[in-house]
Order: sequence, then C-alpha cells, then structure tokens
Amino acid sequence: MPARYLSFRCSVPWLLLLLQTLLLSCSFFGFPAAEDIYSPDNFHPEFQDVNHMVIFGFGFFLMVLRRFGFSSTAFTFLLIVLGVQCSVLVENFLVFLGVQENEVGLRSLAVAVVSMTAVIISTGAVLGRANPVQLIVMTLVEIIFFYISRCINRTFLQVPDHLSLMHVHLFGAYFGLAVSSRFPEPPPGLDKNRSTPRSELFSMLGTVFVWVLWPSFNSILTFSKREAVLNTYLALAVSAVTAFMLSALTSKDGKFRMTHIRSAVLAGGVTVSYTAQRIWHPWVAMILGLLGTVITILGSHCLQRCLNPALKLQDTSGVHFTFGLPAVLGAVAAVVLNVVEGGIDIQWNDLSSLGYLVFVDLGAFCQTISTALITGLITGLILNIKLLKAVHVSKYFDDQLYWEFPHLSVGF
Amino acid sequence: MPARYLSFRCSVPWLLLLLQTLLLSCSFFGFPAAEDIYSPDNFHPEFQDVNHMVIFGFGFFLMVLRRFGFSSTAFTFLLIVLGVQCSVLVENFLVFLGVQENEVGLRSLAVAVVSMTAVIISTGAVLGRANPVQLIVMTLVEIIFFYISRCINRTFLQVPDHLSLMHVHLFGAYFGLAVSSRFPEPPPGLDKNRSTPRSELFSMLGTVFVWVLWPSFNSILTFSKREAVLNTYLALAVSAVTAFMLSALTSKDGKFRMTHIRSAVLAGGVTVSYTAQRIWHPWVAMILGLLGTVITILGSHCLQRCLNPALKLQDTSGVHFTFGLPAVLGAVAAVVLNVVEGGIDIQWNDLSSLGYLVFVDLGAFCQTISTALITGLITGLILNIKLLKAVHVSKYFDDQLYWEFPHLSVGF
Amino acid sequence: MPARYLSFRCSVPWLLLLLQTLLLSCSFFGFPAAEDIYSPDNFHPEFQDVNHMVIFGFGFFLMVLRRFGFSSTAFTFLLIVLGVQCSVLVENFLVFLGVQENEVGLRSLAVAVVSMTAVIISTGAVLGRANPVQLIVMTLVEIIFFYISRCINRTFLQVPDHLSLMHVHLFGAYFGLAVSSRFPEPPPGLDKNRSTPRSELFSMLGTVFVWVLWPSFNSILTFSKREAVLNTYLALAVSAVTAFMLSALTSKDGKFRMTHIRSAVLAGGVTVSYTAQRIWHPWVAMILGLLGTVITILGSHCLQRCLNPALKLQDTSGVHFTFGLPAVLGAVAAVVLNVVEGGIDIQWNDLSSLGYLVFVDLGAFCQTISTALITGLITGLILNIKLLKAVHVSKYFDDQLYWEFPHLSVGF
Repeated sequence: MPARYLSFRCSVPWLLLLLQTLLLSCSFFGFPAAEDIYSPDNFHPEFQDVNHMVIFGFGFFLMVLRRFGFSSTAFTFLLIVLGVQCSVLVENFLVFLGVQENEVGLRSLAVAVVSMTAVIISTGAVLGRANPVQLIVMTLVEIIFFYISRCINRTFLQVPDHLSLMHVHLFGAYFGLAVSSRFPEPPPGLDKNRSTPRSELFSMLGTVFVWVLWPSFNSILTFSKREAVLNTYLALAVSAVTAFMLSALTSKDGKFRMTHIRSAVLAGGVTVSYTAQRIWHPWVAMILGLLGTVITILGSHCLQRCLNPALKLQDTSGVHFTFGLPAVLGAVAAVVLNVVEGGIDIQWNDLSSLGYLVFVDLGAFCQTISTALITGLITGLILNIKLLKAVHVSKYFDDQLYWEFPHLSVGF
Repeated sequence: MPARYLSFRCSVPWLLLLLQTLLLSCSFFGFPAAEDIYSPDNFHPEFQDVNHMVIFGFGFFLMVLRRFGFSSTAFTFLLIVLGVQCSVLVENFLVFLGVQENEVGLRSLAVAVVSMTAVIISTGAVLGRANPVQLIVMTLVEIIFFYISRCINRTFLQVPDHLSLMHVHLFGAYFGLAVSSRFPEPPPGLDKNRSTPRSELFSMLGTVFVWVLWPSFNSILTFSKREAVLNTYLALAVSAVTAFMLSALTSKDGKFRMTHIRSAVLAGGVTVSYTAQRIWHPWVAMILGLLGTVITILGSHCLQRCLNPALKLQDTSGVHFTFGLPAVLGAVAAVVLNVVEGGIDIQWNDLSSLGYLVFVDLGAFCQTISTALITGLITGLILNIKLLKAVHVSKYFDDQLYWEFPHLSVGF
Repeated sequence: MPARYLSFRCSVPWLLLLLQTLLLSCSFFGFPAAEDIYSPDNFHPEFQDVNHMVIFGFGFFLMVLRRFGFSSTAFTFLLIVLGVQCSVLVENFLVFLGVQENEVGLRSLAVAVVSMTAVIISTGAVLGRANPVQLIVMTLVEIIFFYISRCINRTFLQVPDHLSLMHVHLFGAYFGLAVSSRFPEPPPGLDKNRSTPRSELFSMLGTVFVWVLWPSFNSILTFSKREAVLNTYLALAVSAVTAFMLSALTSKDGKFRMTHIRSAVLAGGVTVSYTAQRIWHPWVAMILGLLGTVITILGSHCLQRCLNPALKLQDTSGVHFTFGLPAVLGAVAAVVLNVVEGGIDIQWNDLSSLGYLVFVDLGAFCQTISTALITGLITGLILNIKLLKAVHVSKYFDDQLYWEFPHLSVGF
C-alpha cells in the first residue's frame, strides 16, 4: 500500500517534462517578435527587488513547519519558475486573442512574477498537505483562472491593468482556502505541523526580506512610483509597531508571539496595495496599516478558534488572516477613498454617479473573491482525484516523503 | 515577586499604542503638504539598500547570544520602525522651528533610517539586559538628543548636513556605553551571554549583508556618490584582510576568532564615513581601512581586559571597539585631511585660519561625544527607575522572558 | 608532530601583511590618476547586485559540509576581498604594459569581482582540504593566470573584452580540478565531508541568492543589457524546472535530491553566459538552459561513478558538473550560434571564412581550458610543497583546525 503514494518517479518528472516541452514549443511559436520583446522599457533594479522578494522572501517566509524546510523553500521555487513561464505564455495568448494590450520584455516578466504571488499564497494554505503533482496542477489552473478574473475586471469593470494585478492577495488567499477545504484534516495527534524556534527564525528571515522589499512590489507597475513607495513604507512601519502592540496584548502573560509578528507586520503592505499610488496624505496610509494589523491579529484569534473548526478548514500558514483579511480591508478602503475623492470632485451632488462608482468598485472585488472561491473549490476537487495520488494524512508535513536524506543524522 | 517583572502586558502595548497614536496625530497635523512630501527626488535603489542593510543586516548582526535570537532580530526591527516615524516627526518639528532645511519624501525617510543606526548601535551595548519598555524609551530619547546634537553641529560649527549625519556611529556607541554603565552586571556564573556556532553563523550572515551594502550607506546622502562608493569599498576590503591577519596573530594557537572577524571587517566602513566623499587617492582610503581594523582588534583586547573591568562596563556586542573606536579614528583622520587640504590650498601661510579649521572640526566631534556620554548617562539613570521594571540579572539574555514558545522542544 | 601543522600564526598573518603592504604600496604608485579612477561611469545598482551575489551568495552556496560552515563562508570572503585588490592591480599593470584598455572606477572593480568568481569556483573544488595559506597562494596565482589567459584571448583570438571575462566558469572549474588532483584523498571512513539538512538549508539559501542575482552577473559588462537579463532569466527558469524533473527521475524512489537541485538550477546561467547578449529568440535561451541542466545532472552521475574514481579526483562541491560541463556546453553553443549567424549573413557561400570563425572561436575555448589545466596542475604541485604546511588528511573538512570555539557545546 504505502508504495503506491510514496514514489513520484512516474508522475512528477513526466508532468514537468510535458509542461516544459509545451512551454518551449509555445515560446517558439507564441512569443512576440524579437524587436518587440526586447523593448527599451528598462526597470531592472525594481524587477530584481520583486524577483528577490518573491523567490527568496516568500520561500523562507513559508518555512515554518519543523520538518518541512526543504520542501517549503524548494517547491516554492519550482512553482515560481514554472508559473512565470506559464504566465508569460497565457499573457501572450490573451494578447493574441486581442483582450489585452501587449506588455513586453522585462515588464512582461514582472507581471508574471507578481501574478505568481497568488499561487505562493495559495500554496501556503495547503503547505505540507499537497504533493508536488497537486501543487503543479494547482499552479497551472490558478494562473489561468487569475488571468481570466483579471480580464473580466479589466474588460467589464474598467479596473486599470496595474490595479487588477494587485488583486493577487485577495485571489490567492481565497483560492487557497477553497482548495484547502477539500483536503482531509490531519489527525489530531500529529505534531509535525508545529514550528521550532529554528524554523521560526528562518521564517523571520524571510519575513524581514519580504517586508523590506514590499515597497518595490507595490510600486513596480504604477506610474506614480514615489507615492507608492512612501505610502507602502509608512503603512508597513505602522503595521509592524501595531503587530508588537497587539501581540503582547492578546497573548498569555503579555509575551510576544512570533506567529503574530510574522503575519501581522506584512498586513500594512497588503492593505495599501490597491491605494498606495493614490493616497496623498501619509496619515491615511498609516491608518490603513494600523487597521490592517488589527484585523490580522484579531482575525487570527477568531478564525483559529471559531471559523476554521466550524468549517473544518485547515490553513497551514494562516494565509486567510495574513493576506485574505487585510486584502478585503484594503478593497473596502479603496472603495471609500474612491467615493471621497469622487465626492470632492463633483461636490457630492451627483449621487447616482457616485453610486455607480461604488457599484463598479465593489463589483470588481466581489467578482475576484467569488471567482477565487468557486474555481478554488473545483480545483480542490480535481486535486483529490485518485490519479494525482493524494498524500495520506499520516504522511503530512514531512520532508522525508519527497527528499532523499543521505545523512547520518536525519533529525532536522 | 517574579510576576512583577515577568509580564509586560500592562506596559509595552499601551506604551506602543500611546506612541503610535501620537505619531499618527502628529503626522496628521505636522507632515508637510502633499506636494512637498512627494517630491521628484528619486533615489529608490540606494534607499532600498540602506533600508535592507539597517533592518535585515543589523538585525541579524546582533544575533550573537545563544538564547536571544528572536529578541535580537525582532526588537531591532520594532525599534527601527518606531524610530523612523519619530525621526521623521522630530525633523518636521525642527523644520517648523526653522533650524533645519526641509528635506522631503524618500530623502527624509533615508535620513531617518540612517539616524536609526545610532539607536541600533546603542541597543547592541545593552542587548539582553534592557527590556522592551526600556529600549523603546531609550529609542525616543536618543533620537531626540541625536537631532539636537546634529542641530548644534550644523548651526554653531558649520558641519554640512550630510556629514553631521555620519556622526551616528560616534553618538550611538558612546550613548550606548553610557546607558550600559547604569545597568547592573550579570552574575559571573551566567552563561547565557555566550554564543554558539549557530548563533555566530547567523550573525556572520548579517555581517556580510552589512558589509556588502555599506557603500550605499556611506554614499546615500552625499553629492559625490562615486567617490564615496569606491573609497568605502576599498576601505572595507583592506579592513577585511587586516581583520583575518590580526585575528590569527592575536588569538591562541594562531586560529581565527569569529568575534574578531565580525566586528573588525566593518571597521573600515566606519572609519571612512566622514571622509569617503572627499578622498581623491584610493590608498588613503585603504590606509584608513587598515588603521580602523588595527584599532578595533587591539581595542577589543585592551578594553575587555583593562578598561571594561575597571569601569565595570558591560558591552554585550562590543559596540565600543566595533563602532566607537573606528569612529574616533575617522574623526581624527577627517581633521588631518581637512588641515592637509586646507594647507595645500592656502600654501601653509595662514596658520591662524588653519588653527580655526582644526578647532571647529575637533569641536564638532568633541561636542558629539560629550553630548552622547552625558545624555546617555542621564538616560541610563531614567531607564533604571522602578516604573520601567528593569529585568532581574538572573533573567538577562533570555528569549523566554519575552516570547511565547508553544513548542515541544524549547531548546533553541 | 600535530603542532607542526596546527598553528598558522607564523604563516597566515605574515603572508596577509606582506600582501596587503604590497597592494597598498602598489595602489600608491600604480593606480591611475584621480580624475581617471572616479569616472562618470555609474552603474551602482548592478555592481551592488554582483557584489552581493559573489560575496554573500557564493559564500553560503559553498556551506555544504557539516563541520565546515565558518570556514566556507569566511574564507570565501577573505579570498574575494584579497583577490579583488590583486585583480585591480594586475589590471593596472596590464594597462601599464599597454596590452589592455583602461577601465576605470566602479567598472574596474566590477571586472575584478567577476574575475574572482573563477577563484571561488576553484576554491569549491578543494574546499576543506586546502589550508588558508594554500588558498591565498592559489588565489594570487589563479588571478594572474586568468588575466594572462584573457590577454591571449583578446590579443590573438579577437575575443571581445566582456566575453573573455565570461570564461571565468570554464577557467575556474578546470583550474580547480587540476589543483584538486594534486591533493591526497581523504580516508574512506571520514564522514566529515557529508552534509546535514541544516548545512544544506544554508547552502540552499546561498543558491537562491545566486540564482536571483545571476541576470545582473551576466549583463553587468555587456552593451545590450536587456537581452542579457531576459535570456539569462529564461534560461535559469527552464534550468530550475529541468533540475527538479531530472532529480526525481534519476534518484532512488523518485525523490528529489538537494545536491542535484543546488547544482543544476544554476546550470542555465552558466550555459548562456557567452551568448546571453546575442540571442534574439527566447526559445534558444530556454533550450540552452534545459541542455545545461541535463548535462549537469547526467554529468554528476557519470563523473562521481566513473571518472572521479578512475582519475582519483576529489571534487568537494562538484564544481566540475556544476560549472565546468555547462560552461563547455555554452562554449559549443556559442560556436554554433556564431556559425549560424555568420552563415545567414554570408548566405553559406564563403565556407572558408566560416571555417576561420569556427577555428578562432574553438581556439579561444581550448586555449582557456588548456591554460587552466596546465597552470592548475603546476599550482597544485606548488601548493603541496612542505613550506605551505598541507593539512593532514585526518584533519580535512574541520572548522576546529582554523577557528577558536570558546563555546560550551562544540557540536555545530
């Protein structure tokens, strides 16, 4: 019996080979002509920052489980390099269909890397429970659905292109949750999903990396880079202070809890992602950062005690409160800011036009969430068909299933 | 009894809340108008480098104690995000008082991040002995005094603005030492202030980060960036070679000692910080790097054997010889270079004007050191009042006092 | 007896002192005039990236041995800072001789840092078996021979300057192998040359760093930066996917092996290093990345089972298949691309001129490899003379020989 799901030799390599061949042949036919792809659009340092943040930062950010360090880092890496190629080709296909403008060269790669954040967030929700085959299939499906959701937002709801990309957190978190709900729960006695001080330290290392490079992430595709950088930095700073405050306030004995710090310091960056380039008063960004952290830490308590047990949800890295809730708050804030700005412009007279504004904005966010939930549920069902050899619950959260350890001491 | 100083629930969160509210309301009233703060002054890559170096680099650089890894990294992070906000507001207040020119946008943030280095260096001196409340109070007081010291230098001693900022190392080290002298000594049997190979490896990781990004730190606010980058790089390179040389020469059996390497490779960067943008011959920068390391390693032996026991000083991370002594050397070198340059210009005829030059230059450095020592002593006295619940010496250097460990194995 | 080779007090410090004095005095006489060295050629962000990649990335990349973490990181660091200074001076000497154009300022430093990659790769081959004195001597000799090899390529074989620099991987790998062949084999029972999950995790951290910053490395000195960045990124991405694929395919039970991943994800970057700025179709770069990984993983199996035991080669970090084989493949690819491009230009009529092209191109690569092998063998013989106190085989791969551990627990 165990042999059935222990070996991935007949699945992972051939799946990867198939995909890579497909991507290569598509790139032969599908890539735009040479003079297009090597355009003069040069933003190498920002691209490098975002690339670094997504691959290195998120890879180590997810390294919380005590026996799952290799897989967290390496699978994140694999999914990103695979997803970036897919993403570039999906984009070229959409350009071919005429539903998207052509973005070229490094800019196209940057869009792909930012889009991959959605997949990484979803991966965080099923971390340690999905095997590589499932993760690869999930990556492909999610990237395609995310592009479709962006297309709908852009075409029917007039969301600008760079803002539609900022729905990554919202889409990634709810897609991941929906997928996660279709996976069986780990047995209650299993202690491999705990963290050790060492794994938390590596995770902290990744978190600080993500925190420091987040301003580049929020500003890479906007036109008003300076505002985006400054507002994101201030929101993140307030977020971090509030995280320490609330952690000491809500935990036993008034001690800090590393899990709180790790998830809440990033909340500010998620919250201002839709609005960073439009806020003209630093205190607005700072308040958004504060509210983002409040909702993250209160959310982490509520969700883990009430909602998750009720819905039988298992959210390994807590992506719901780390990325989902602040993204929802950010969406609400974006609508409010839009209304206030619109209201000031038109003197609050033309209420029907304001109402239309609210309707369109809310529509975009609701569309993203519902697409994420529905497609996530479907993907979750697909992932658990027999063909994909789901991991048995007793083998969850364990590097030894996927990695050779030719070591004397197998203790991590 | 123990309960009295074990819980920070009634102090840390409320202190942070108070401060953050204060900062938020100040930012509402005090920040300059929107068109000012989002100025066209764009130096994002350099700002990112310095930010990365200060938050990530110094955070891990301080991770030397074997049971204090979480606190070193996370408290450094908390102090920086809090201090940067304070620093921006203190600056706005000084602009409001008319004693400082207005620096805007990212430049203002960059000044704030660079200023925070002083606080991080001081934190290094009391690492593991001050509780979070004491650290937060120290941050606020130090930032204010550092701005006052800079104001005096700028107004009365004609130190250019970007040079007055480079007094961070000098101010931070001597402020930290003075504060540290007011803390009780740890009991001699305590072994928690040792390092393990693992903690030293993480600290080495942080050190290499700081080393690599130091040229950006020294060049971010100067006008002649290229000279600053090149001279700092050469000084750091010579510094690193000399560090290995002297470490093997002064230690038992001719082996290397990680503590030496860690503190001495950075000496070159500190030494040339006042002069990096003015040196026109690479060999001058290289010699300064060499002398900086010599003074650091010899200083570390002298101080730890003679001065520290005599003055009952306890300097956890060795900030005195890592940052203090090379900064003093750099100050002397700046005076000498100024005199030589001035002497060449005026043909050594006008000795009284040369004397005035020396007097003003030396005055600035003496003012910084004495302000640091005096305000540090006062701060040290304030930090040890009963209200701030100083940690008992038996609880020094221990993460468990501040962090929840919901782990099976509490061994780090 | 043991005392004879245990202490490096009488060798390492004095060697370093001698070298540093030499470098300092050379820099006094030999550096170009001030207005030359501080030229307007400004590419700080790219330089920072490459510097970060070489010092931090490779330093941690080499940290695979379980008891050799301090030495891997710190010696890499020492060799780079020493080698960069040497390299700048060798270059100035060649400019003085008139065989090289003058490169100034940061550009000159960038060339030096890139050249140092050859030394780091060679260090990887003898890691844990050469003592610091041997490593320092090897660095000096290798840098000089590499410059001579570049000079020959540039002068007699018309290789452009920035391409001749990309021979670092080829030169470094084969020089290292030749040096390594002159070191005695470790005894079969020695288990210190194994890795632990912890050391592999640190090594993975370094690998991801190198991977992310590789596009900057390949593009720093070319004229068509955008093409170089984009092609290198795509080649690396395909490389990483293929690495996972082949690792699962070739290992027992279809599990992944960290050693494979670590060496093979970088193969794409090495393979396209000669051609990244000339490829005009992304799929060519992608196919090169794929072939690079194939040759690396198949090579690692063949070499470790057949070639290395036959030739009694011991290649600690596997530089032969990580850097050597993909570089050879890249060289062949460069020749083929050159012929195809030339053939399209001249309509395949002028076969003799095509033949000349092939001859010159192949000549450059053969010259590099043979120079590397011959000078490497000579260097290996020099390194094992009695004066340099080679380490006894029983003391191989051990930090304790070189580092003071004033710790309670000496277990790493």
